[in-house]
Amino acid sequence: MAVPGRVILAAVVSRTIPTATVARLPVYLRSLVELPATQETCSSDQLAAIAGVNSAQVRKDLSHFGSLGTRGVGYNVGELRSLLREALGLTREYSVVLIGAGNLGSALANYPGFEAWGFEMVAVFDTEQDKVGQIVGDLTIQHLSDLEKVVADREVSIGIIATPAGAAQDVADRITRSGIRSILNFAPSVLQVPDGVSVRRVDLSTELQILTFHLSSRADESAAG
Amino acid sequence: MAVPGRVILAAVVSRTIPTATVARLPVYLRSLVELPATQETCSSDQLAAIAGVNSAQVRKDLSHFGSLGTRGVGYNVGELRSLLREALGLTREYSVVLIGAGNLGSALANYPGFEAWGFEMVAVFDTEQDKVGQIVGDLTIQHLSDLEKVVADREVSIGIIATPAGAAQDVADRITRSGIRSILNFAPSVLQVPDGVSVRRVDLSTELQILTFHLSSRADESAAG
Repeated sequence: MAVPGRVILAAVVSRTIPTATVARLPVYLRSLVELPATQETCSSDQLAAIAGVNSAQVRKDLSHFGSLGTRGVGYNVGELRSLLREALGLTREYSVVLIGAGNLGSALANYPGFEAWGFEMVAVFDTEQDKVGQIVGDLTIQHLSDLEKVVADREVSIGIIATPAGAAQDVADRITRSGIRSILNFAPSVLQVPDGVSVRRVDLSTELQILTFHLSSRADESAAG
Repeated sequence: MAVPGRVILAAVVSRTIPTATVARLPVYLRSLVELPATQETCSSDQLAAIAGVNSAQVRKDLSHFGSLGTRGVGYNVGELRSLLREALGLTREYSVVLIGAGNLGSALANYPGFEAWGFEMVAVFDTEQDKVGQIVGDLTIQHLSDLEKVVADREVSIGIIATPAGAAQDVADRITRSGIRSILNFAPSVLQVPDGVSVRRVDLSTELQILTFHLSSRADESAAG
């Protein structure tokens, strides 16, 4: 089966795929990429085991892309990989800017993983005068007042916010006005954004508190039991 | 209303609270902490607006903790804050170890946020001989062979994995054998862990791919329309 054309695929993916399924697509793709190069087909059981879900979920998730796979044989690895790359928009490169050059922001600016995944960090911004002009990674920190020009010149599509919580909403307002439609938010705030703007939040304190919730309830169970 | 005793609370929280609710508790807590110090009560509408959910969801989430709040008045801010802190296990401090002192690991070791939230990073481990002995943050990188001793001596309850994907499962096996029951995983792998071990995954590449999925399907819609 050929990979469906862009327009058909877009119609499928943009209207009907549940958020939870979208969140699993990168996991399936990574699972496929990690298979031995010689493996041509892959069962839903195998994908399920690597991705940490059950095989019915895998089949349901992938059914959004048409009737893929052959009963008793599985999915064609190369075909499914191409389809997922296409659906996830990974057939092109993306320019990224980072706002907030504190500890976490500087760490992210130095992080080589972005480039490996096809994301080019083109600028780092801050508003503190003593940070502007310093070097992080390969970039010189610019004042946030340069944002609009950089976004236009470099066709930036993703903004990473690594400011303190109190500054994050103002920065989000500013970067969406500049035309950016995708935000990865490391600040511990829930952002309000216009329709058509996607936000993903990475919140280390929330993740840690979910862990301590479980630690705490287990300790209590032991004490109670 | 007094905060329920630990044992009753534990029985409630460990058995019946849905995962999605647990994930929102830190957001509610942060919302309460950010209210003006003089504000004594808080409506579900107000919490909902800050947390980015609807007020019916707030009421449903908080109903797991008993019949809190007064109709027409709202929740008592101090009481709800204490209850959430207690439920999230934030009334004590936690010792944390980090495994993998590469770019992201070193950034995390230097990140002052952990301490602010009551998490003390007590050791950083790696297996590469040229990293062992180097300094990150306030800590000297130790060889992973010291893990078990440190976990026992320092009563470590949380392990942060920041290794490459290929090493993450072995490290997870090792830290769970050492007695750690909570893992925050930054490696792009889905970990298999024994029952009773909690894992939270922070995966920057997955978050970025979810954003590019939306960027890509919007571009296609424009092209098709």
